[in-house]
Amino acid sequence: MIGGGTGAFIGAVHRIASRIDDQYELVCGAFSSDPEKARASGIMLGLMESRIYNSYAELFEKEKKLPPEERVQVVSIVTPNHLHYEPAKLALESGFHVILDKPATFSLLEAKELARLVLETGLLFCLTHTYTGYPMIKEARQIVASGKLGEIRKVYVEYPQGWLSGFEEGSGNKQASWRTDPQQSGIAGAMGDIGTHAFNLAEYVSGLQVNRICADINIVVKGRKLDDDGAALLKFSGGASGLLMATQVAAGEENNVRIRVYGEKGGIEWQQSDANTLLLKWPDRPSEILRTGGGYLSSFAAHNTRVPAGHPEGYLEAFANLYRNFALSVKAKINGDEAKPEWLDYPGMEEGVRGMAFIENVIASGRSEQKWIDFTV
Amino acid sequence: MIGGGTGAFIGAVHRIASRIDDQYELVCGAFSSDPEKARASGIMLGLMESRIYNSYAELFEKEKKLPPEERVQVVSIVTPNHLHYEPAKLALESGFHVILDKPATFSLLEAKELARLVLETGLLFCLTHTYTGYPMIKEARQIVASGKLGEIRKVYVEYPQGWLSGFEEGSGNKQASWRTDPQQSGIAGAMGDIGTHAFNLAEYVSGLQVNRICADINIVVKGRKLDDDGAALLKFSGGASGLLMATQVAAGEENNVRIRVYGEKGGIEWQQSDANTLLLKWPDRPSEILRTGGGYLSSFAAHNTRVPAGHPEGYLEAFANLYRNFALSVKAKINGDEAKPEWLDYPGMEEGVRGMAFIENVIASGRSEQKWIDFTV
Amino acid sequence: MIGGGTGAFIGAVHRIASRIDDQYELVCGAFSSDPEKARASGIMLGLMESRIYNSYAELFEKEKKLPPEERVQVVSIVTPNHLHYEPAKLALESGFHVILDKPATFSLLEAKELARLVLETGLLFCLTHTYTGYPMIKEARQIVASGKLGEIRKVYVEYPQGWLSGFEEGSGNKQASWRTDPQQSGIAGAMGDIGTHAFNLAEYVSGLQVNRICADINIVVKGRKLDDDGAALLKFSGGASGLLMATQVAAGEENNVRIRVYGEKGGIEWQQSDANTLLLKWPDRPSEILRTGGGYLSSFAAHNTRVPAGHPEGYLEAFANLYRNFALSVKAKINGDEAKPEWLDYPGMEEGVRGMAFIENVIASGRSEQKWIDFTV
Amino acid sequence: MIGGGTGAFIGAVHRIASRIDDQYELVCGAFSSDPEKARASGIMLGLMESRIYNSYAELFEKEKKLPPEERVQVVSIVTPNHLHYEPAKLALESGFHVILDKPATFSLLEAKELARLVLETGLLFCLTHTYTGYPMIKEARQIVASGKLGEIRKVYVEYPQGWLSGFEEGSGNKQASWRTDPQQSGIAGAMGDIGTHAFNLAEYVSGLQVNRICADINIVVKGRKLDDDGAALLKFSGGASGLLMATQVAAGEENNVRIRVYGEKGGIEWQQSDANTLLLKWPDRPSEILRTGGGYLSSFAAHNTRVPAGHPEGYLEAFANLYRNFALSVKAKINGDEAKPEWLDYPGMEEGVRGMAFIENVIASGRSEQKWIDFTV
Repeated sequence: MIGGGTGAFIGAVHRIASRIDDQYELVCGAFSSDPEKARASGIMLGLMESRIYNSYAELFEKEKKLPPEERVQVVSIVTPNHLHYEPAKLALESGFHVILDKPATFSLLEAKELARLVLETGLLFCLTHTYTGYPMIKEARQIVASGKLGEIRKVYVEYPQGWLSGFEEGSGNKQASWRTDPQQSGIAGAMGDIGTHAFNLAEYVSGLQVNRICADINIVVKGRKLDDDGAALLKFSGGASGLLMATQVAAGEENNVRIRVYGEKGGIEWQQSDANTLLLKWPDRPSEILRTGGGYLSSFAAHNTRVPAGHPEGYLEAFANLYRNFALSVKAKINGDEAKPEWLDYPGMEEGVRGMAFIENVIASGRSEQKWIDFTV
Repeated sequence: MIGGGTGAFIGAVHRIASRIDDQYELVCGAFSSDPEKARASGIMLGLMESRIYNSYAELFEKEKKLPPEERVQVVSIVTPNHLHYEPAKLALESGFHVILDKPATFSLLEAKELARLVLETGLLFCLTHTYTGYPMIKEARQIVASGKLGEIRKVYVEYPQGWLSGFEEGSGNKQASWRTDPQQSGIAGAMGDIGTHAFNLAEYVSGLQVNRICADINIVVKGRKLDDDGAALLKFSGGASGLLMATQVAAGEENNVRIRVYGEKGGIEWQQSDANTLLLKWPDRPSEILRTGGGYLSSFAAHNTRVPAGHPEGYLEAFANLYRNFALSVKAKINGDEAKPEWLDYPGMEEGVRGMAFIENVIASGRSEQKWIDFTV
Repeated sequence: MIGGGTGAFIGAVHRIASRIDDQYELVCGAFSSDPEKARASGIMLGLMESRIYNSYAELFEKEKKLPPEERVQVVSIVTPNHLHYEPAKLALESGFHVILDKPATFSLLEAKELARLVLETGLLFCLTHTYTGYPMIKEARQIVASGKLGEIRKVYVEYPQGWLSGFEEGSGNKQASWRTDPQQSGIAGAMGDIGTHAFNLAEYVSGLQVNRICADINIVVKGRKLDDDGAALLKFSGGASGLLMATQVAAGEENNVRIRVYGEKGGIEWQQSDANTLLLKWPDRPSEILRTGGGYLSSFAAHNTRVPAGHPEGYLEAFANLYRNFALSVKAKINGDEAKPEWLDYPGMEEGVRGMAFIENVIASGRSEQKWIDFTV
Repeated sequence: MIGGGTGAFIGAVHRIASRIDDQYELVCGAFSSDPEKARASGIMLGLMESRIYNSYAELFEKEKKLPPEERVQVVSIVTPNHLHYEPAKLALESGFHVILDKPATFSLLEAKELARLVLETGLLFCLTHTYTGYPMIKEARQIVASGKLGEIRKVYVEYPQGWLSGFEEGSGNKQASWRTDPQQSGIAGAMGDIGTHAFNLAEYVSGLQVNRICADINIVVKGRKLDDDGAALLKFSGGASGLLMATQVAAGEENNVRIRVYGEKGGIEWQQSDANTLLLKWPDRPSEILRTGGGYLSSFAAHNTRVPAGHPEGYLEAFANLYRNFALSVKAKINGDEAKPEWLDYPGMEEGVRGMAFIENVIASGRSEQKWIDFTV
């Protein structure tokens, strides 16, 4: 693991996700640029001192010299955005499979470069767009793909948060500080942090790609350096249209990311606050409540569920689904087996490139006087 | 009543609304341009034959000659949009108070002219934007106005319907036919029919006015002549921003109009499917569930409720609230009494003018290459 | 109308219910035993002074002497329980159809006598068990009757209220005072006031009859004279079993009456707080959300709905459904027409007798050391 | 781990729960009485062959001979009920801390004996009543204990399942087979499997103890050997009363265990389908929505939560909370540290004894003609 030392939020989440299905063992880490902290973190996590490194460069250098059966197989990178590209690049160049926290990189250019490297090296790469790990999101994608809803016409996605309603970065909140700092986050704040999730969810579920965008991007809280709020009108290839909303100033909101997709014949709705439910809506017959664990679900939903219907699985299990599917895919690759489609259903650098393109396009549109801008990659 | 003959949807709703609180008696009507149908409708509604008229012109002419104590006092106009202005104008000129179905008129120009006439005649005028009749919407407005949420930053309003997902106007559906016909509806379809409701709700609850708009307006169903779908980025005077969505092609959706408003300190959420509930959200303490009938509500909510908490009131009661408040205001005026603020809280031609301006601006924006257009009235 | 003078809760509800569908005109009343109050109420309600009576005896005596076309046709009795039997009896004996508020009478004996009179006179009789007026409750009954759920096994019904959590009758609350007074309410408090509703709902939806009962009946609030809380284990003819809960001391609860019925093949769930929804549950396929106004509903649900799906109807409309169905049935009888099954679907004295039997049996069981007592009528 | 070989449901759940917080390492196991299967399971779980045992007796015998730093510390027993007592007893006698799946034992007598042994040995013991691991259940208990609701009057608990609506044990369903077999489950079916959960939840949240009970216990599905359905009227010490419902024949239901508790001043409601929410109800002010992760929660809720509000945690995390708290308590004991009250908040043999007493009392009551029976332990 690169990053994720004591006090980090997402690093701890990655570690839990990796443990749930017993597919990973944490063997080494470069948890912090501060050697003291790196060491303390590693020891707390039960690592051997010899495999607690002071930098990711050291980690890659030393690990790749270990015998194959000892050496780390998958590297998890959970640093702030500005520290994604370099370690990910070096990991690939050193021959390690990579799990990377989103958004992929600091810039679209870096993302394209990483994507190129992934293809070139033939290594596997997972980008942790957590929400696509939910079984009912997988079901939603399958339903849309099956054509049951007819041709898709509308895609509405929203990610309302309220935790940045005040000037949190002014009061030493570490999570707020780096996320609102252009040096660490890049050109976008809310759009990068949660807008990319919403965008990824919209494309994943609908199976469509955004090709034009018209955005309103705002810095609502005085003194903040990056956007904390925005919305965009979307046009998709194939003719569908939609809306994306992402805000961090909806005071009182938690993390209720929500998606609705409508086709000619019906619609679907999902929201994180009721994550084990997928609503299937029909104009001429009763709406249906699809539930995690239901025997009528697709193999994609079933594969990503652990306990019987009615025993809720949540965010950590969705995260764990990415980790497990990636592990199964890596194992298959190592063993020369064919990976099942259910295993390969995790986000990678293709999604990473589109996510970075979203950031660049949505910010460009926010600044533009022109109504629609083409979504360029 | 003008319009609303047998088979009409909204005419029947108006009549129920007028009866619920026993403030009105239906005494005369011009229910249809077809004399046969007009007469049949009038008889079915229990009118004396002498007061069933063949045209609104005849109605006004004859009614105003009746002695004051016999003559109709309030005229309800429930015709399609293209037949709003003329009868409303004539009603005012004939000295009658008017209740008019939304949207106010066929064009903004007509609306302004009506608004002028209302001021000039000093007569009372009610425009039936039903959703503002809900007690919890009134509570929402009071909460925003009280400053409890702090300065308002975001306003999200949506009105998803699915009933026009197919080409309904091709199969003799009367409600679909006139609503999608430019000759009867005007320049807008969905934007006029439900977009105006969403717009009105946004301004009513937030207490703010839209001053810029950027819209995506679509005809989704092939062969349709007017928009059946749209969305708009909104800017409000004072600096808030927001989103408006209105669609009639969200297959499987009913009429779940919904509004969320966020200020510096908290937010509120209401939706018609749970109309007796208003959610009040706070960043640092539990969200609150305000319920119709709760003893802790404002006089505005309390005044518009009939039964104890937990006995749901719905759409017809919301509609009846407009009718009752208008009746109380008319009575006060007639008796020379001062009307209470709660009575005067019904939409009128001020809202009518803004609604028609919304239609013209949103359609203009939909056609424009320019990103933001000023909301002109 | 008998009873329902100024300040009465349920009288006003009855009047609204009678107006909604324009099937009734209030022509006379004996609103109070206090002549002053009776007169004031009558005038406020717009009655002619000649038809405001000082007693129900006077009302019946004078009304039956009026010419048939002038005379009242249906008498609505909305007095407290101890004043149900006498006026209802006199109304039937005087040849008037009757609408009576629940519970039917003060004692089971009286109820049986009234039921006998109804049969004897051939007059129509409606007992206002409001909750069976909800369209989705009618749908629930139809679904059970259709056999779709298979043989019924379990019936759970509950009616939690919280308004009597304190000693309200000690502080001049009129609604609380008569409901907790054995002289006015009879032998039961909560069991009579809301327990009968729950019981009626259970039998109406399941189509089954309770034949054994084991109850726990409590007076929770110190000083109260009648039960304010209770629960009962139920056995139904045919072998199903169930639970009934009714309490007025569930602090913070409103009126969320709720019923769940399970058969061999599936189950249904309804609650007043989401009255326009009926959940249909299956073990092996997605649950379904049936909604008022849906085109797929039975004629019984459709007939009891006024507005399109998504525009909520509530308690007053459910009440109005009883009034309207009764009016349609009365008209059919007067005109010698055959009444449709949908019109005849209102509760009458058969339900009244069973409701009073419930009160006597549940109270007897509450006092008994014996576990199961036979439900005797 | 004792039991939980390939194909077992709850064994896998225990293992996930143990991994989530990285407090346990699986070092040895006796997974099955079938040596072949035991070995295969152990290998699949990554154990060294030397520590895969053919019986729990062998496990205890060999493990206790290992040096303290190598030897297993905590033994998890996840066998069917009839195989709880012997291994648990032996584990304690061999000096190991124990985690045991519920219900505690096959009989009350065994439970008391185990409880005695726990006290005698001074070892720690955890009984996995999962639902008390939910943070909002912990919050509920704290709220009741704080007195905010006033004296408790009513406790309603229910656990409806539908998975045994058919004769599943006849079709080779392993989960169904042992649960409906008196040889493996004991005297109770549904009452033991889920009734004990409901009972435990009721006592845990209310802080009260049941002292009288009146139950209706049924075998609904023909051919079944143990109860699959039941309900009980409850009396608590201190004067509160309540209802417990547990059924496995509510066709279409999943696992929506639910509890409501009302005191003089307010009430609370929680259900597993919305596990991250706790409703707090008041008679005179808005209900409150308490949410996992909220900054306003008690230390007991906060301690049992991993991710920010709005990222749902579920059943596995609730289970993991038991495991983690037990680990923290064991560590504290080993290190001679004082355990925090939050760590010690896990169910043990005291709850085990009461749970077994519930089974014996509820079944006895179901068979009795007497109305109330004293809850004897």
